[in-house]
Amino acid sequence: MASALFTSASPWLELPDPLPLDGGQSLANLRIAYETYGTLNAARDNAILVCHATTGDQHLASPHPITGKPGWWDKMVGPGKPIDTDRFYVLCPNVLGSCMGTTGPGSLASDGKPYGLRFPVITIRDMVRAHVALLAQLGVESLYAVIGGSMGGMQALSLAVNWPGMAQRVLAIACTAAMPVQNIAFQEVGRQAIMADPDWQGGNYYDSGRAPDAGLAVARMAAHITYLSEETLSEKFGRRLQDRSAKSFGFGADFQVESYLRYQGSSFTGRFDANSYLYITRAMSYFDLTEAHEGRLADVFRGVTSRFCLVSFDTDWLYPTSESRRIAHALNAAGAPVSFMELAAPFGHDSFLLDVPALDRVIAGFLSR
Amino acid sequence: MASALFTSASPWLELPDPLPLDGGQSLANLRIAYETYGTLNAARDNAILVCHATTGDQHLASPHPITGKPGWWDKMVGPGKPIDTDRFYVLCPNVLGSCMGTTGPGSLASDGKPYGLRFPVITIRDMVRAHVALLAQLGVESLYAVIGGSMGGMQALSLAVNWPGMAQRVLAIACTAAMPVQNIAFQEVGRQAIMADPDWQGGNYYDSGRAPDAGLAVARMAAHITYLSEETLSEKFGRRLQDRSAKSFGFGADFQVESYLRYQGSSFTGRFDANSYLYITRAMSYFDLTEAHEGRLADVFRGVTSRFCLVSFDTDWLYPTSESRRIAHALNAAGAPVSFMELAAPFGHDSFLLDVPALDRVIAGFLSR
Repeated sequence: MASALFTSASPWLELPDPLPLDGGQSLANLRIAYETYGTLNAARDNAILVCHATTGDQHLASPHPITGKPGWWDKMVGPGKPIDTDRFYVLCPNVLGSCMGTTGPGSLASDGKPYGLRFPVITIRDMVRAHVALLAQLGVESLYAVIGGSMGGMQALSLAVNWPGMAQRVLAIACTAAMPVQNIAFQEVGRQAIMADPDWQGGNYYDSGRAPDAGLAVARMAAHITYLSEETLSEKFGRRLQDRSAKSFGFGADFQVESYLRYQGSSFTGRFDANSYLYITRAMSYFDLTEAHEGRLADVFRGVTSRFCLVSFDTDWLYPTSESRRIAHALNAAGAPVSFMELAAPFGHDSFLLDVPALDRVIAGFLSR
Repeated sequence: MASALFTSASPWLELPDPLPLDGGQSLANLRIAYETYGTLNAARDNAILVCHATTGDQHLASPHPITGKPGWWDKMVGPGKPIDTDRFYVLCPNVLGSCMGTTGPGSLASDGKPYGLRFPVITIRDMVRAHVALLAQLGVESLYAVIGGSMGGMQALSLAVNWPGMAQRVLAIACTAAMPVQNIAFQEVGRQAIMADPDWQGGNYYDSGRAPDAGLAVARMAAHITYLSEETLSEKFGRRLQDRSAKSFGFGADFQVESYLRYQGSSFTGRFDANSYLYITRAMSYFDLTEAHEGRLADVFRGVTSRFCLVSFDTDWLYPTSESRRIAHALNAAGAPVSFMELAAPFGHDSFLLDVPALDRVIAGFLSR
């Protein structure tokens, strides 16, 4: 695996100033890759920032350069779609620490060698700080809306709280105000799977011709289960066998779900950097909006002027409805305008990425007001 | 790691005949380690078979020889306890395929070398077949009761169905009649974590001086999360930091839950064999009582004469109440006597091993009638 990692033809720019980080360090020559859709109007008031999830990227509504698949929210973003690019200028940056063109642990440091674990540990707020700096470079000072699901929703909330007044509307889907302990636990398993792989080499694998693909695949498999509902798993796979009529009495992928997970794991290693997975899940585990407010979430939102829309899914056990409800209650307590909906959808946490027409209507409706 | 693996001073015996297996092979010179508590009465009608869970063993009510901890059901089994050894002769064998004295993949095959992956893939019914053969050797032809939680409950159900008439009472706790797909998925992740570890060496690690401890630890960590409830995780750990007042901005175990999981993973490798983990989880994923009855669970129980007691826990998301309810409905449909209780307990799947006084009462009550 080359140190350039996964190349993308996306536009990018380098920030003129070092980006200060929550950990106390700063990052100079920070490069941010992004995609845009639609046109910024003369009043510069039609920009929507869409924040991607853990292993997502900037390829929001255009084909992925590695997989060739449509953008991850292709159904949501485009002319006449819920996030209507005839009307809005939609930006999606690759997050800080990732591997699709934005600076991350696989990028070259000033000594010409990949950062590896020399890359500073970042936070969700650091990711948003990079977004805000990118927007400034692009001449965007305020946002019609900031939108995201899962880790994207955390970025949206962080922007609302830490850059108050910047986004008129905040749409946070299937997320939380502070990473629940069960998710911290699952993320730790993923990181341990990567770091247990001898090919990880303390993070210095980029120029070795080897990469911790086996560990990263296991991390992905474990995470993938948490994205799906029991209902989806039962309907999609159940106990059905894979291309065989009887159990093999071996350790091959007898069950369809085993074959599916193995594929999810191995294909992921072709498009994602293991160190980026470490950094991004670490940022998520650190995410806690209430940190500076001694756990009082209502205090977090005091003085925030955005309008909020929160969405959860009834089969999402990773970021269950209770997490969104807690945010809604805090926004109510802080006197902020908020609408909150739990949508029925069978797909678990992944519902925000899949075919849930009610979500399309909620997003279109929220953006029309 | 020596090929003798984890030694135990438990009594053991070698079966006189080869044990036929569901996969079509048979195992000669099968050795079974077990513990007994109490005394078999003259009528030989007071024997209770207790079946252990995935990573349990025969040390039911006596200290574990490696960890030094009390037996895994010490609170439940003993004089005057719910499973009263003043009254009952209680047997607990180490399951086939395990590593505490019963023949498994780490045992020596007839060529004097460890089986490794030459050990045949087994089923839950094979485990029970070994139990029944052991009981015959010990002069026990019928059981006052068979009892087990989790994989132990599956063995109890398998004995009831496949050796009808043998057990008067069947007590199955926190289990299922057919492994749910989500559990198959988590078990596959665990196996992949082990097999991805280069020290696994295709299963031939016993005489190499290396063992797939890193992979086994990751497997254990992932499984351990599924044994706990969100409630337990929140109360026991929450987002509290481990021995530090602020985030480290690194990849150490910042959170208590991370430290706890790492400990659970690494300590497990000192008492369990990675190949045994493969074989036992494979047996669990294969478990489906309805296999020969085209999915009709009521048909499975037709003609079964035991009395049943089923217990589930309200916070168990690995083997949720719906699994036990399905068994209860099938038993009702088959006309078998069954009582079924969902107990309130905060500990998730692990509730059957922890302090849940209501469970003690249910077990004592069921055994008194």
